[in-house]
This record gives sequence, structure tokens and C-alpha cells, in this order.
Amino acid sequence: MNASVNFDKFDVGYDIPAKPGMDEADIQTPCLILDLDALERNIKKMGDYAKAHGMRHRVHGKMHKSVDVAKLQEKLGGSVGVCCQKVSEAEVFARGGIKDVMVSNQVTDPAKIDRLARMPKLGCRVLVCVDDPENVANLSAAAVRHGTQIECLVEIDCGAGRCGVSTTQDVVHIAKLIDAAPGLKFAGIQAYQGAMQHMDIFADRKAKLALAIAQVADAVQGLKSNGLDCDIVGGGGTGSYQFESNSNVYNELQCGSYAFMDADYGRILDENGKRIDQGEWENALFILTTVMSHSKADKAIVDAGLKAQSVDSGLPTIFGRDDVKYLKCSDEHGVVSDPDGVLKVNDKLRLVPGHCDPTCNVHDWYVGVRGGKVEVVWPVSARGKAF
Amino acid sequence: MNASVNFDKFDVGYDIPAKPGMDEADIQTPCLILDLDALERNIKKMGDYAKAHGMRHRVHGKMHKSVDVAKLQEKLGGSVGVCCQKVSEAEVFARGGIKDVMVSNQVTDPAKIDRLARMPKLGCRVLVCVDDPENVANLSAAAVRHGTQIECLVEIDCGAGRCGVSTTQDVVHIAKLIDAAPGLKFAGIQAYQGAMQHMDIFADRKAKLALAIAQVADAVQGLKSNGLDCDIVGGGGTGSYQFESNSNVYNELQCGSYAFMDADYGRILDENGKRIDQGEWENALFILTTVMSHSKADKAIVDAGLKAQSVDSGLPTIFGRDDVKYLKCSDEHGVVSDPDGVLKVNDKLRLVPGHCDPTCNVHDWYVGVRGGKVEVVWPVSARGKAF
Repeated sequence: MNASVNFDKFDVGYDIPAKPGMDEADIQTPCLILDLDALERNIKKMGDYAKAHGMRHRVHGKMHKSVDVAKLQEKLGGSVGVCCQKVSEAEVFARGGIKDVMVSNQVTDPAKIDRLARMPKLGCRVLVCVDDPENVANLSAAAVRHGTQIECLVEIDCGAGRCGVSTTQDVVHIAKLIDAAPGLKFAGIQAYQGAMQHMDIFADRKAKLALAIAQVADAVQGLKSNGLDCDIVGGGGTGSYQFESNSNVYNELQCGSYAFMDADYGRILDENGKRIDQGEWENALFILTTVMSHSKADKAIVDAGLKAQSVDSGLPTIFGRDDVKYLKCSDEHGVVSDPDGVLKVNDKLRLVPGHCDPTCNVHDWYVGVRGGKVEVVWPVSARGKAF
Repeated sequence: MNASVNFDKFDVGYDIPAKPGMDEADIQTPCLILDLDALERNIKKMGDYAKAHGMRHRVHGKMHKSVDVAKLQEKLGGSVGVCCQKVSEAEVFARGGIKDVMVSNQVTDPAKIDRLARMPKLGCRVLVCVDDPENVANLSAAAVRHGTQIECLVEIDCGAGRCGVSTTQDVVHIAKLIDAAPGLKFAGIQAYQGAMQHMDIFADRKAKLALAIAQVADAVQGLKSNGLDCDIVGGGGTGSYQFESNSNVYNELQCGSYAFMDADYGRILDENGKRIDQGEWENALFILTTVMSHSKADKAIVDAGLKAQSVDSGLPTIFGRDDVKYLKCSDEHGVVSDPDGVLKVNDKLRLVPGHCDPTCNVHDWYVGVRGGKVEVVWPVSARGKAF
């Protein structure tokens, strides 16, 4: 290999798609871009809503996996900390300076429990969810070993059909175990209804959440009559936050997608039957892509395929364009219909990803733009932190 | 932040899921594991097949994105180099010591063309595909500017419906431009029929490839009668390599998935109607996952969801198990049916991913195992190199 070649001197490309100060037109694609104006408006709006409704907002860091975005949410949205789903994510946020970090998920592997129990030494509050009595003893032993405290919430399955216990009896049983365990502190209830977030109709979502609220209220009452108060009754997503906020039961929201928006969330309807990406929230996240081939008159091939996004919740839409449509994709290519032949090779398009969370997890960088210029380049700090 | 905490002293977790020498049971999940025995057998088998049929094998690095796997393919499979789809991937392979690197795709962005033109200075042969006459001039200018040579293949769309020209006339036109352009060398034809690779029935795949072969043969003849010889007539995938190998037209294969296998390829049938993952190729790639919750009697929740895989080609299957089934997933969870309640919290399962390429692109590491022990931990060297 010729050592005189220094790839690092390249302005962009290879490791990083853009530099602050450059024109948006020079960004290397495919990459994620953030419309910073839209992002800031979304963050402020949700922060103001939570405050007006007397709710704390613990933003969901699993969506963006970015310390920089989490700090912007603290600054502009008054968030109290983050939740995330994996110990490795939590470590990234704690190392990055977030002082209140919840793993809104079960941690059962011994090595992961050990890592979790060390985390308070970084100077942050650490919380985790529990749905298994045996797990309590293991978390307690690790906290005692490290001389730390882990706050534990009992997770209730209020409709998501994943983790969590189903009865107030089980909630009280586990809460008592937590309360009695050295090194642990009972912190309350985690009750996220994940299954209804993407239902189109507002009234359908409201009806599903009403069931969850009743279930959670019963658990809170059951705990209270056993002398156990909940510091946190947490849950709520972009498709449901109004319902938790007006429940008189929940006191913490955990919204994620509102900040970036995506095509799948964008399709759900607000109380007036209007798509939530047409007023309630703005699209702030895009996959910037470039036309790389146009050898057929009516089809353009773009450079964002399966390795630039997740299509689990549908294909991306093309932002601000009715004349062209993203039709299908393979590993590195997207096929865009171009019936009028308006696109040329090297034209750029903004895609709204089908599902923001797993799409962000594919990329290493967020390129923040404002007024046609790159303002910031932020790492996707916890990308790939799945274990 | 308390600086006395050193997360790096952790044996595993956070940044890396395993260390060489540890027991397979201690690997942190979710992560990718490679059965090294199966991988080596797959690589040797395809290498032997290519050799026996007088074909060169340029392995597809876009599948695994790993310098280590590419070198194993050189060593055990006699591969002549790699192809890949992006300049940033090509840079990784060239930096890693691969001496013959083809971008089997169009490169049209000016900054990317510039990077491509610098690559030969690393001491490797560099090839790229062209389907647009205007692209020839831009590639030529960059090669001249850097005093390098880029070898160019004309890409034919022989059924994939993406990039590539469709007529022999267009092939000859572009080949002549390449041949006349300073800094470029005409290297032949790229003709990958991507759309038929996953058709179940062998005879259906054969019929589709016969059309491609006829089209490519016509182009080769057209070039010959214009005084242009093809050093490379390349294409072929795991679902078609037999047809290119017996075509008397193609001389280079570009197979990728055969080395790892996945659930979607595994379902296609060989000449005798047998699934190709039941004899022709072995499953060498798995997502190792752990049961993290079992609060419902008949369902286990595992820790591999959408951030540990791509489900574009269907859900994963559970290797070697008929008693449990991966039913659905969300961002960080997989729901596994467990009708007989045989699974316990912290049990591990091997998932065969639906689609290996974009699944590998989510992970940072391959953990290579043999005989129950971790033997190697390889980086997914070109992960996220999409631009």
C-alpha cells in the first residue's frame, strides 16, 4: 500500500458525509439530514405541551440514539432525562453527560446487569424495568456488589403484548420485592402501550389508551394500599401523549418520534382527521439521496436502498414532490418513477423514511442543515448499541 | 462525571460483544455469529466450482463488508478480488489490502469520482461501471488529473431493471467512448440479473438467465466486430452462478450470499427441487439472541428486533428448532411463540436472518465461533459505508 496517500485529507466522503459550513448541495449521499429549524420547533412544542399539562418528559433516546439531540431536548424542551432500551445505549447517554437515564426494558443477562449496576458511578440516576421476580434478586446483588443504587419500575403490559406483567397482583408482588431488596429503590410503573401508537383514527387510539389508563390506575391504587407510592408512572408515545397527559394517572411522557417524524407516524390522524405531519409535527429528518442513473426515460435510480433505511413500516416518501415517487428498493438502489422525465443524474431528493428509529440506527451521522448550509454534524452516538 | 470509572476494562459489552477464547455461552447479544467451519466449507466449495468451470470469482463484498472475510475468500476460495457497490466500501477494501476492487455500480457524483480516481494510488486495480456517455468524460478527467487509470465496464440491464443500458448499440457506443478516453481502459461488461436470483424454481431461474446470456452474447459480439475485446464479462449470484458458469459468455462470477446464506435465499430450490440451504450451502451466519422476558406462558420475548436485522425479505427463522417460532418484531424485541413453554429467561437462540446483506450492515462485529468457543472477532469493516 502506498503510504503517501492520505485519505483523511479528503474534505468529505469515506468517513463523514459533510462538514459544517459547506453548502447543502455538496453533502455526500445517502445520508441523514436534519432540518434544524423544524427539529427545534418540534422539540419546543412537545416541551411546552408537557409543561402545560404538568407532565415530566423523559425523551426516548432509542429513536435518535444521539447525545446531541438529547441535550437539545433538555435545553429547548425541558426534558428531565432519557429513556432507552439497552444497557449499551444507556452507557452512551450516561457517558455523554445525561444525568437521568432509564432503561425502559428488562435487563436479565448477568454481564449486562453488572454493567447497569456500575452506571451510577458515572454520576447519573439509573432506572430499569422489571417483570420477573427472579430478576429483582439479581439486580439487587449487583447493586450491592458495586455499592450503587438502581431504581426499578415494574413494567405492566398494557396492550403492547411484549414484556410486562398483566395483573395488579403481580405488580404489587414485584414492587414489594424491589422495595425490600438492598441496593434497589422502587420507583414506580412503566406502562407503554406500543401496539396502538400507529392506529390511524384518533378515537380508536383514545379507546385503546383508556383501557391502559384503567389498568394502570388500578395498579397505582393497589400499590398505594400496600404503602407503595409511585414516583414515576411513565409511558406515552407520539401517537398517544395527549391521553396519558390528561389521564390523572401518568406523570411522565416518553415520546421519541415527534422530534423527527417519519412516513408511518405521519399518516396517523389527529382529532380533526388531519395527518399529524400536516400541522401537529414537522418532518425534520430526511434521507438525502442522489440520482445515480437514468438510463430509462421514466425511471430514475437513486443511491438510497436497504442499507440507508429500514423499510419494515413501508417505503419512504419523497418530500415536497408529487411528480416523482419512490417505488421499490434493493440493497443499494431505490427506483423512483419519473413519468415526465424531470429528474437528472446527480439531482438530489429528500426522502421521509418509513420508520425513523431503525433508519437512524443504520447511519453514523446526522447532518444538521439550516438555510441551505450545513450547521452541525452530529454522530449517531449509540448507533449499533444493541447489547 | 466520575473519571475513576473505566468502562473499557469490561471484558465484553458496550463496544464489543465477545473476545477470542471465551465460551460461546458468554457472548453478549444480540450480535452476529459466524460458524467458521460452515463458512470455510461454503467458501471452498464455491471456489472449487468456479475453478472447475474455468471462471474467475470476484466475490461480492457488499454482502459481508468485511476485509477479513474477503481475505478468507482469497485464501480458501481463490477469489481474484472483490466487487462492491459504493466508493466508500471500495476504499475500505483497498485500504485493507485487496488488490483488485470493482465498484459494480455507477459513480456519478463529482466528489465520489475524485475519490475513485485516487484509489489506484493505494496499489490496487480499480474498476467501475458506466451506463451514461456523459459519465465517461467525468471519469476520464478525474483519472487524468490524478495520473491514474480507471478500468470501466459498460453495465447492461439484463433484467434487474435498475442501472444499465439495454441495447448492444448503446453498449458499443459507450465502450468506444471509454476506449478513446485518456486515463480510462475499457474492461468489458457488467451484467448482473438481480431480479431472478430469488425465484424459487430452478427452471424458472434458468429461463430468465438464458435471456440475459443471449443479450450479453450479442453485446460481446457487437463489441468484437468493433475491435473491442472484453477482459471481463461479469455477473452471477448465488441463485444463478451455474448458468453464467455454463454460458460460454461470462468469465467472472460475483457471488456474495453463498458464503453466509440467509432465510430468503435458503428457500429457493436446486435442480432437484431441494432447498439450497439443505445441502448446496450451509447457514454460516446467525443472529445470536437471548430470551429477556417470559411473562406470558406461551410467548418468549427475545432481544433481537429491528435494530439487529433487516426484515425486508421476511422474518428470521430459528435455526435447528421446530418447537419455537419467531413471530414478529419491533425495534428492540422479537416475539417468539413457545407453545410448550420450553424456553427460559437468558436462553439463547440462533436466528437465520431473512436477508444477510442489510442485516450485516446493522452490526459492528462478526463473532466467529468453532467448537463452542469464540475464535475470532472481526469488524464489519465497511459497515455504514453507503456513500
